[in-house]
Amino acid sequence: MNTSEPITFVILGASGDLARRKVIPAFFALYCQDKLPPEFRVVGFGRSELTDEAFRQRVMEHLACRYSLGPDCARREAEYLARCFFVTGSYDSRDAYLDLYTRLREIEPPGAAVNRVFYMAIPPDAFLDVSHGLGDAALIACDDGGGWTRVVVEKPFGRDRASSDALVRGMSQIFSEAQTYRIDHYLGKELVQDLMVLRFANAVFEPLWNARHIERVSVLWRETDTLAGRAGYFDRYGILRDVVQNHLLQIVALAAMEPPSGLNPVAVHAAKAQLLRSIQPLAEDDLVLGQYAGGTRGNLRVAGYREEAGVPADSCTPTFAAGVLTIDNERWRGVPFFLLAGKGAARSVNELRIQFRRPAADLFGTAAAGLPANELVVRIQPDEAIGLRVLNKTPGLAMKLQTGDLNLSYSEAYPQVVPEAYERLLLDVIAGEHGLFICADELAASWDVVTPVLHAMEESPHPPEAYALGGDGPASTAALAARWGFPWPPPG
Amino acid sequence: MNTSEPITFVILGASGDLARRKVIPAFFALYCQDKLPPEFRVVGFGRSELTDEAFRQRVMEHLACRYSLGPDCARREAEYLARCFFVTGSYDSRDAYLDLYTRLREIEPPGAAVNRVFYMAIPPDAFLDVSHGLGDAALIACDDGGGWTRVVVEKPFGRDRASSDALVRGMSQIFSEAQTYRIDHYLGKELVQDLMVLRFANAVFEPLWNARHIERVSVLWRETDTLAGRAGYFDRYGILRDVVQNHLLQIVALAAMEPPSGLNPVAVHAAKAQLLRSIQPLAEDDLVLGQYAGGTRGNLRVAGYREEAGVPADSCTPTFAAGVLTIDNERWRGVPFFLLAGKGAARSVNELRIQFRRPAADLFGTAAAGLPANELVVRIQPDEAIGLRVLNKTPGLAMKLQTGDLNLSYSEAYPQVVPEAYERLLLDVIAGEHGLFICADELAASWDVVTPVLHAMEESPHPPEAYALGGDGPASTAALAARWGFPWPPPG
Repeated sequence: MNTSEPITFVILGASGDLARRKVIPAFFALYCQDKLPPEFRVVGFGRSELTDEAFRQRVMEHLACRYSLGPDCARREAEYLARCFFVTGSYDSRDAYLDLYTRLREIEPPGAAVNRVFYMAIPPDAFLDVSHGLGDAALIACDDGGGWTRVVVEKPFGRDRASSDALVRGMSQIFSEAQTYRIDHYLGKELVQDLMVLRFANAVFEPLWNARHIERVSVLWRETDTLAGRAGYFDRYGILRDVVQNHLLQIVALAAMEPPSGLNPVAVHAAKAQLLRSIQPLAEDDLVLGQYAGGTRGNLRVAGYREEAGVPADSCTPTFAAGVLTIDNERWRGVPFFLLAGKGAARSVNELRIQFRRPAADLFGTAAAGLPANELVVRIQPDEAIGLRVLNKTPGLAMKLQTGDLNLSYSEAYPQVVPEAYERLLLDVIAGEHGLFICADELAASWDVVTPVLHAMEESPHPPEAYALGGDGPASTAALAARWGFPWPPPG
Repeated sequence: MNTSEPITFVILGASGDLARRKVIPAFFALYCQDKLPPEFRVVGFGRSELTDEAFRQRVMEHLACRYSLGPDCARREAEYLARCFFVTGSYDSRDAYLDLYTRLREIEPPGAAVNRVFYMAIPPDAFLDVSHGLGDAALIACDDGGGWTRVVVEKPFGRDRASSDALVRGMSQIFSEAQTYRIDHYLGKELVQDLMVLRFANAVFEPLWNARHIERVSVLWRETDTLAGRAGYFDRYGILRDVVQNHLLQIVALAAMEPPSGLNPVAVHAAKAQLLRSIQPLAEDDLVLGQYAGGTRGNLRVAGYREEAGVPADSCTPTFAAGVLTIDNERWRGVPFFLLAGKGAARSVNELRIQFRRPAADLFGTAAAGLPANELVVRIQPDEAIGLRVLNKTPGLAMKLQTGDLNLSYSEAYPQVVPEAYERLLLDVIAGEHGLFICADELAASWDVVTPVLHAMEESPHPPEAYALGGDGPASTAALAARWGFPWPPPG
């Protein structure tokens, strides 16, 4: 990539939460790290009536100096804000895109090739309208000197396999697959990126990485947050679409795929898609769905899901899902994958846990009795860490064993700031690097895993099991876990 | 074992360094941990003219309260000292053993079965005399009620295979193999004991534990101490007999043996002896010998080895040895084992390093260039720790790899006091547990590894290469290491 060419970042839905809290600060962080070209602009587009100045005020609230620039930080912030602009418009108005076009021509350097990133921080049902609006206003193909155009979209991509396919097809009329960057921001997280490194830059894991040595795998995703504030949106999707189909299946794909033939996006996408296609569709029998009940935290009353603004009192939308998947290939024959996603949990934690089998020979007998076998834990967030549980001798005169952790804590080991996922991903968009984005094949395959059960739920809706705020989830998760040999409550 | 029966610990050579600094304090530590029977005595025997009181004074100097007994500590110390006695006698005098017999009868509880441990803290050339003296004075078979007798001997057991065999044969006339406990105190060290646990209580190491996945193995033993104070003794043995034939080969045996069929001593001894018999004798071409030269430490002049008291000015005794061994079996075909033992080193450290191979596919190319492959490091002393070096992604926006350590530091992870090796081993003697002692088969096999090169050195003696105090060893070690693919200077 030629980083000296001007770039314009057009953020559709710029006054929304995602844009203000994640996307615009991420561009700022890239700027602070000198990762943006000298000529760049951030142009917000949205329905709010905002002047550039008002937009800059809003942007400023969320900028934070994470890179220890010292006195330079305020200067950087001022410089960054001076490059922020806002265009007001309705997503379904043709005129609005013409306004955007006119404004871009005003603020972009005249004569030069201009590269543009369109970031769709908007509800997915507006993706097609906006794409057509951009296309019709001649904003896509940069007709004036060879610059490129890229589009970034965020999940959920559709509601099931068919609607996802339709969305992919519809957008492909405006943007080629090569121009399209489907973000799953978990792929930008440091330890999700590290999964490939761990597995393939080290020679000690791959020989163990199969059903002969691994008994079970868990991907656990819990968040203390309830859906207060976004329940109206969430109620149309539910946790399977919001977290499982994308974040968790991506983690499964990276953890379980065959070694790719290379690190190029084509090879990595192929390996992930192949794995996703080998996952058996999630069965209703192997799934527990839940909805958090109201409760208290400290002295505060916290609303149950059905009491949230925008949620019908009889909503059947799950805020918790625990399911067991199996993978139909030689490597993973007989190894269950336990996926758990829950809001309103006791702690916020996202972990991948690889549980190894016990040694065939039980040499240590009672000295090791009751101790768990080896486990590799990759803690994705918070407090990034990698830990390998080993059994060793308890120091002392008895031959007693205990577990200990071979541990690598990122905050202890590394002085560097771990970048936000969005920084990494937006940098890749600028670089034209597709590896950490979701290709159409992966998207289709991951929808295939959850589509049958989503349809079954819709055909005969029944209320998810209520669970207590700050607990482990619905009571019947225990039976599911037990049936497949997973510990309950889950560790971590 | 019945720990309620009286035990008498007879320490031959009780006024010597080993007895006062290691053996007697270890019995005290066992007492503090309530591991001794209510009726026990510690009887010193030696050439010094010492009253019980004088002996107790000497003993007291080396007792340390390591077990946080608080005010109880002083009481324990007094109780322990009150059970210490001394008998003066010459090792080759029949009368002395009769005096010992008489004294034991006086202080041991009358009527009860008395168990006796004879600890030979004496030069090995006195082992046979003392054994015969004990036997002739009817001290071996407890003739008065069914108690047992055990003998503990310390290395060096002989000077080569033949003299070791002769010593074993000679002592077997007095003590059966079952009564004989040959101490290698490294086997009592916490992390040496942990080697079997690590390898066989965990299922993640054994699949990697072979030539397919392991490139090379190092056992590194360095000590800052010179031989000042014991050079006269040492000069008759040298580093190969003092450290390599015993400590280092025992570590190799535990690290490289096949899984034993059980944890019982017979099974473990068989597995270790089998491994030791598979080691090719150390070849002169694969060995570098050194002698430390004089130098300074801080402002102090430190004598070179040939200047030490008791060392001839033309001594050819090595104080450093580095050698490469190969093991003739399927598991270790083509894997070199680098053994290094050196006095007068920069640091005191003893480590086992298992260097794994690189991944077959070099997916990460330049991002991983120059980085070492995985390595498992077991630090036996000081600061016991287990570490697995892994490659992971450097946190940040670039796809760059770096090494990190999955680390388990004993001092950080465990609140317990790590016992001294002698405590563990003496407790095993009391329990009649042979597993951590050297059986005759192992002893013979380990002598076979070094005997040819020892004989070659004696047949045509030549001065070992001088090396600087506080350095890495003789210069030509670099070439040896390079020839077998080991890094130089050694890590750690």
